[in-house]
Amino acid sequence: MEELLERLLEECRPATGQGRVADYIPELAKGNPEALGVYVIGSEGKHSWAGDCRQKFTIQSVVKPILLLQALLDNGPDLVQKRVGVEATGKPFDAINAGERALDSGHINPMVNMGAIVMCTLIRGGSYEERFQRLLGLTRQLAGDNEIGVDEAVYQSEKSHGSKNRALAYLLKSNGLLEDSVEEVLDCYFRACSIQVDCRALAHIGAVLSNRGRLPVSNERVFPAPLARYVNAILMTCGMYDGSGEFAIRVGVPAKSGVAGGIMAVVPTRMGIGIYAPALDQKGNSLGGIQLLEQLSKALYLSIF
Amino acid sequence: MEELLERLLEECRPATGQGRVADYIPELAKGNPEALGVYVIGSEGKHSWAGDCRQKFTIQSVVKPILLLQALLDNGPDLVQKRVGVEATGKPFDAINAGERALDSGHINPMVNMGAIVMCTLIRGGSYEERFQRLLGLTRQLAGDNEIGVDEAVYQSEKSHGSKNRALAYLLKSNGLLEDSVEEVLDCYFRACSIQVDCRALAHIGAVLSNRGRLPVSNERVFPAPLARYVNAILMTCGMYDGSGEFAIRVGVPAKSGVAGGIMAVVPTRMGIGIYAPALDQKGNSLGGIQLLEQLSKALYLSIF
Amino acid sequence: MEELLERLLEECRPATGQGRVADYIPELAKGNPEALGVYVIGSEGKHSWAGDCRQKFTIQSVVKPILLLQALLDNGPDLVQKRVGVEATGKPFDAINAGERALDSGHINPMVNMGAIVMCTLIRGGSYEERFQRLLGLTRQLAGDNEIGVDEAVYQSEKSHGSKNRALAYLLKSNGLLEDSVEEVLDCYFRACSIQVDCRALAHIGAVLSNRGRLPVSNERVFPAPLARYVNAILMTCGMYDGSGEFAIRVGVPAKSGVAGGIMAVVPTRMGIGIYAPALDQKGNSLGGIQLLEQLSKALYLSIF
Amino acid sequence: MEELLERLLEECRPATGQGRVADYIPELAKGNPEALGVYVIGSEGKHSWAGDCRQKFTIQSVVKPILLLQALLDNGPDLVQKRVGVEATGKPFDAINAGERALDSGHINPMVNMGAIVMCTLIRGGSYEERFQRLLGLTRQLAGDNEIGVDEAVYQSEKSHGSKNRALAYLLKSNGLLEDSVEEVLDCYFRACSIQVDCRALAHIGAVLSNRGRLPVSNERVFPAPLARYVNAILMTCGMYDGSGEFAIRVGVPAKSGVAGGIMAVVPTRMGIGIYAPALDQKGNSLGGIQLLEQLSKALYLSIF
Repeated sequence: MEELLERLLEECRPATGQGRVADYIPELAKGNPEALGVYVIGSEGKHSWAGDCRQKFTIQSVVKPILLLQALLDNGPDLVQKRVGVEATGKPFDAINAGERALDSGHINPMVNMGAIVMCTLIRGGSYEERFQRLLGLTRQLAGDNEIGVDEAVYQSEKSHGSKNRALAYLLKSNGLLEDSVEEVLDCYFRACSIQVDCRALAHIGAVLSNRGRLPVSNERVFPAPLARYVNAILMTCGMYDGSGEFAIRVGVPAKSGVAGGIMAVVPTRMGIGIYAPALDQKGNSLGGIQLLEQLSKALYLSIF
Repeated sequence: MEELLERLLEECRPATGQGRVADYIPELAKGNPEALGVYVIGSEGKHSWAGDCRQKFTIQSVVKPILLLQALLDNGPDLVQKRVGVEATGKPFDAINAGERALDSGHINPMVNMGAIVMCTLIRGGSYEERFQRLLGLTRQLAGDNEIGVDEAVYQSEKSHGSKNRALAYLLKSNGLLEDSVEEVLDCYFRACSIQVDCRALAHIGAVLSNRGRLPVSNERVFPAPLARYVNAILMTCGMYDGSGEFAIRVGVPAKSGVAGGIMAVVPTRMGIGIYAPALDQKGNSLGGIQLLEQLSKALYLSIF
Repeated sequence: MEELLERLLEECRPATGQGRVADYIPELAKGNPEALGVYVIGSEGKHSWAGDCRQKFTIQSVVKPILLLQALLDNGPDLVQKRVGVEATGKPFDAINAGERALDSGHINPMVNMGAIVMCTLIRGGSYEERFQRLLGLTRQLAGDNEIGVDEAVYQSEKSHGSKNRALAYLLKSNGLLEDSVEEVLDCYFRACSIQVDCRALAHIGAVLSNRGRLPVSNERVFPAPLARYVNAILMTCGMYDGSGEFAIRVGVPAKSGVAGGIMAVVPTRMGIGIYAPALDQKGNSLGGIQLLEQLSKALYLSIF
Repeated sequence: MEELLERLLEECRPATGQGRVADYIPELAKGNPEALGVYVIGSEGKHSWAGDCRQKFTIQSVVKPILLLQALLDNGPDLVQKRVGVEATGKPFDAINAGERALDSGHINPMVNMGAIVMCTLIRGGSYEERFQRLLGLTRQLAGDNEIGVDEAVYQSEKSHGSKNRALAYLLKSNGLLEDSVEEVLDCYFRACSIQVDCRALAHIGAVLSNRGRLPVSNERVFPAPLARYVNAILMTCGMYDGSGEFAIRVGVPAKSGVAGGIMAVVPTRMGIGIYAPALDQKGNSLGGIQLLEQLSKALYLSIF
């Protein structure tokens, strides 16, 4: 397996040159565009890796499935689906998804920013500090890493450059879809996006989802199997933004990308995969990461279709 | 003239029963739906009135042409038009006028909220306090009333219920169309909308515009004639929101309505008209006010077409 | 007057070089981009002209106000407004003005293609041949020229390149806004757009509208004054497509442009103006024509604002 | 298995009462809203069924994956994807998916009407008659039924009530995405939608897709495995219109629904399922059919997530 990963890594590294590191906040622009790392955790617990797989980066949108999981655990699927729809929007992740209609929950889903902001309000807790700590706790448990924390520089940078997310949040509020203080909710969201991970952590999260809620090796249950199916299904239809359709054809497994270059992929019953490659394509997905996953999928017949 | 106004007022009063007072903020919901007042100032300086014409109410969107005038005076038409487009949007005043495109100045105009927010940033001044004071000064001069001030209760109500306007402002900011602090700019905008006027004040403003920038009677010039043509033209095409086309047919003069029930109408070279009738139609225009203007236009052949 | 027209013509001729002749059908692409002509008919009946003012060209969208007039004459304003709205759409003339909503009459207006297609169905007549002949008759009467006919080459070219208009018509039909045969209705519309005129004809049409329905000199009434106000009001708010707002500021009179380079302008109570200048700006309006009208408006204080 | 199917059928039959038979063409309105049938073909070749599973109905949109397969076989994935995008549109199947932008291939996908119309032009053949015969041949082979033909009454009904599809086709043509004669292409499309099938036929098609291109029992290869993955992936993300996200959660397998009440579901490596239940939900999917599939998925752990 290590050999395969090393070989694919070499094949895909040139692809990174065609992408661009996200630069909407200064902190992200510091990412190394040529970095490429991969980490695989099999259902039986075997770890394999190659490349820049211990490089730290911020989780960004890969926190969305964890937010969804926390919201599902705290409220059950019925309530969550009433507040955050489950259909693809057909638009970019940060689209002002409001035309001539009043915005309603059917126009958002858990993998776009508006939906993720609403999910922050669905986490149980007496304060947003407490809510965030519960989310961080779940993230550490899923990632199998209790050291995980927030990248303060990215958090501050997000917070001070967050006009688009503020527009989205106030739009939710003016449509009656968000009751709490916009700044408190967004603070929780910005901190969630700034959680620092590495490929190993993402692979571990993927492994728990592939294992339908049980930790690898110990098989300890973190959440019920139907919630894993819920999250995996959403990842399949919307996890790669408006590139989800092509990803389903080329790779064929549930996955979630983040703008810092991470991808967390779930191969049901078989493995979790974590990728880091910060050079992005035009839809905001890791360019080298998708190519590496496509090769890996072909080599190991990972597609579920 | 008084007789005509009295007669039309009685004819149109029943129409107010078909409208609804604005209730998006609690303070506005207190308006008396049956109120109806009209005030006319002729180019030669004659004043005529009928009904509830000394009732105080907030200027709301009728401040938009004053904001535009101040922006034009401080920057000239070329710069203003570069920052705030002049075409009808075909959508309601508070529409999130952004589909799949990045928002640009061509998607907003001075008579919709987004455009008015941008115009606040175009007023010259060392602080937003100073900018607002300059705007208030111009309003007093145009209205011929130095006592005019802000309705503090409405201002506070707007400020604490302003999620939609905050969404619009952050959307402008995230598209590079607004550089200053959103809260400071909106504070200026909310105060501008909360300026307290009566029918006489609106008629006086209309008279100056109809007189192409000169005060009635004294003929003192407040602003250059080409700016009056600029403002009047915009009022004609966009002044009554997405009811502007029908208003042009039924009444045929430049006018601007506000959500508190005011209408300021300009009959070029002939008169300014101020109306108060807080019961609104579905597009947010004063229902009784439009009917009264239609009858007045027919009786006095006011249409410029 | 002739001197003034000659002088302005020379000043504006260079502007034509910045525009482009319409080329969506081969026949229109043959237009001479440097052509520029102007014709003025005063309310007292005086004719003045300069430049290429006897050049023949197709009326194109300038037929829309005539279609509207015929529909108003045959059905009255109430029915017409129920079938074809009167608000600016904020979009180009041939926009598929349907987002996520079912299309209704409020989404179209008489100056965009969809509205003009619906108006063809509102002309009285036993057949579409008869309807077209009535429209042609009205056009001849308004233009004061009984020789006016159809440019067969342009008509055939429109008919065989009319996919966009067919899409618009079938969209109307599928929304229950058009009952007759799409091909018959479009045939009438394509012929209407292919009526051949010159600057003199357009000036004459404008003169009748400026004279509120009476022919110049004879003062014979062709249609009632309120219909002239209806048409002029619509021209003011929508006549220059999504350039109507800027035209209202720069020129300040009701006008209609066509893609072959014609503009028909109405100066209420004073004059009708016909322009020919086939080089268009990006919104499909005659570039040299607008500039010439702007200069003429400034020289003679034509703006109604 | 038969027992399970019979039991689920009885449990789900009441659900059909909440749906409505499609009535956009008179022929479809004749469907029996209480009908419910299911047919399963396992990868090993075992057939099981219950209810109205030999009732004939038209294939409607379930022909879209077959059209896609034919287009892929005739042109390869690269060309097909260049002409017909693969992302969810986030809108209903017959949406005029054009806002302010020119339409391009990225705005359509193989499971919406516009994409299916384009795919008709990608079938190889000297005439549209020949193209249709090739499509019918493939359908018969996939369905394992050489008797399959066209329901002439539905075909004529579609053809004479096809304004919306004509609007879509002319819109494609005016955007340069369709070169051939609109009426010829649509005739092929209307005939394709009118192919008559039953639950057994749909189950057989699903079985071939689940078997990645090989016929059940004989294992004869009809098309290459990568094309099966392509089609199955598209079905997963877009097969149930704008209800695909919820279907992925509730059922969790690739599937395609048709407006006549059919659903064809693919359980990779395990089985194909054919459903008939003409009472539809608001998104145009078979209401009883989805409920039956959900119960079946839970009973047999069919979800691939």
